[in-house]
Amino acid sequence: MTISTISKPHERLAQILTSEMEAVNTLIRTRMASEHAPRIPEVTAHLVEAGGKRLRPMLTLAAARLFGYSGDHHVKLAATVEFIHTATLLHDDVVDESAQRRGRPTANLLWDNKSSVLVGDYLFSRSFQLMVETGSLRVLDILANASATIAEGEVLQMTAASDLATDEGVYLQVVRGKTAALFSAATEVGGVIAGATEEQVGALFAFGDALGIAFQIADDLLDYQGDSKTTGKNVGDDFRERKLTLPVIKAIAQATPEELSFWERTIARGRQEQGDLEHALDLMKRYGTLEATRADALGWAAKAKTSLGALPDNEIRTLLRDLADYVVSRLN
Amino acid sequence: MTISTISKPHERLAQILTSEMEAVNTLIRTRMASEHAPRIPEVTAHLVEAGGKRLRPMLTLAAARLFGYSGDHHVKLAATVEFIHTATLLHDDVVDESAQRRGRPTANLLWDNKSSVLVGDYLFSRSFQLMVETGSLRVLDILANASATIAEGEVLQMTAASDLATDEGVYLQVVRGKTAALFSAATEVGGVIAGATEEQVGALFAFGDALGIAFQIADDLLDYQGDSKTTGKNVGDDFRERKLTLPVIKAIAQATPEELSFWERTIARGRQEQGDLEHALDLMKRYGTLEATRADALGWAAKAKTSLGALPDNEIRTLLRDLADYVVSRLN
Repeated sequence: MTISTISKPHERLAQILTSEMEAVNTLIRTRMASEHAPRIPEVTAHLVEAGGKRLRPMLTLAAARLFGYSGDHHVKLAATVEFIHTATLLHDDVVDESAQRRGRPTANLLWDNKSSVLVGDYLFSRSFQLMVETGSLRVLDILANASATIAEGEVLQMTAASDLATDEGVYLQVVRGKTAALFSAATEVGGVIAGATEEQVGALFAFGDALGIAFQIADDLLDYQGDSKTTGKNVGDDFRERKLTLPVIKAIAQATPEELSFWERTIARGRQEQGDLEHALDLMKRYGTLEATRADALGWAAKAKTSLGALPDNEIRTLLRDLADYVVSRLN
Repeated sequence: MTISTISKPHERLAQILTSEMEAVNTLIRTRMASEHAPRIPEVTAHLVEAGGKRLRPMLTLAAARLFGYSGDHHVKLAATVEFIHTATLLHDDVVDESAQRRGRPTANLLWDNKSSVLVGDYLFSRSFQLMVETGSLRVLDILANASATIAEGEVLQMTAASDLATDEGVYLQVVRGKTAALFSAATEVGGVIAGATEEQVGALFAFGDALGIAFQIADDLLDYQGDSKTTGKNVGDDFRERKLTLPVIKAIAQATPEELSFWERTIARGRQEQGDLEHALDLMKRYGTLEATRADALGWAAKAKTSLGALPDNEIRTLLRDLADYVVSRLN
């Protein structure tokens, strides 16, 4: 595969960062080993080897390389970020009682919930050891705060999921917790370890935050209008799982009393009948909430690109700008 | 209550450390709050307010005070240690499918498994923020390693629990993970923050490690010979739950082929019948494994006391010595 044939920005980033991504993968495999408890690498390998785009560790490597960093702490931090991500996936699948992840049966189904909970804890503690090895208190502070935001967002999502009072503000908090907090921590720590200025670290935070929000809003929108062949998801999964995401929140905000009882019955109480998804989609179209959600996602992608203005202008920055376009390109 | 009427060493320690323990409790209440997710303080309060002896945070405060520490970082570290302990209890109850903890229904029963998993994650991330605030990389290193030992021990316990090949070496690893790792980290970080020498920190580790092991072995022994009125547990709970603890491991090591099939059936396969617990107790008596287990617990308590030799000789040290006697005194 030559550069000219690669069009997706995360693939071009992966190519530029090939040797460092290999170092990250090696470190992940080394650190997920456990001499005493073979169940740990079994469960972790199932998830880590399944692929995924490794977007988060790539953001850390890219942020460090933006500033020409030449040490190896960014590799440790990239592995840290991927371990945190994998740990949250393991716990999420227990919480959501999921059966599939990345097209394969989830660990909680292949082994049991216990394994998912405890191996998630193990990976989180391993990530903690890795970040301590960098010796940077600033990095530890960023990742500690991100961990708290992630955990708080998860609890909030659980309690707010089917509560019709959930508004766009709460939705944004949940999205920051479940997605944006780790994106922004990933870019921030890459910059910190490379010696970026405070202003640049602030810009890296703003970029990761906006990119993560755009990414998650796009994901939530595709649940209602995606092509299941390309997304690998069925249209309306979130509706069936009674998850209040932006297209529905916007429709509820404008609902007539009659429509409100429809949302009350289907989302809050979960009494869904044949034809309900179609009716929900009709309501979203009637109020233009799919378009409004798309506009929000594009707005966050634009914000991400603007944040890059404060950062060194080089090839990596161009690819990060393209990445912001790419995460919402599926919506066009 | 005057000092003369208090005989238990942890109560005397609690009295000497009253103002600092109050500061720890205030910090715990402040930090378990969550503006956005009220489920978090609900679940945490259920567990934190239920009492418990607060042994682990007290060990941190005591270790710092051994060296005359007069700052306030030991309060943060004591709260850190209690948060880690509470987080592991929440996850343990999900893993063990427990219904009771400290005489009250468990959080997973009152709310659900999801809440226990996610609130446990939140408390762990809060503990992480607290320790970062001390600014000590040495403290972070100790607690990161302790977290990994705890998580690995939990996975090992899950996979080794009903496996007859579990020997005393594996048992000790599990005990270090589930109990001793946090005891030793609690004492170590108290010393580190107070400026103890490397030799003294080593002695604090050895003390916490041996104290934790003595404590857990005593607990496992009392399961088979305790008075349910004082322990609040029923004799043989571990047998019914098919947990391989030291008294049984020692009996299996000496078992005849016929006795081996008994253990195979009752522990490995879990096919228990009326009279099996009595037969198991008979076997333990025949091989003197309850006495041998008691001797092991006393040995670890003695080791804990010996470790204190390298530490400053003052009132706190005397109470820590008494504490080592106390954790095994229930066996006399």
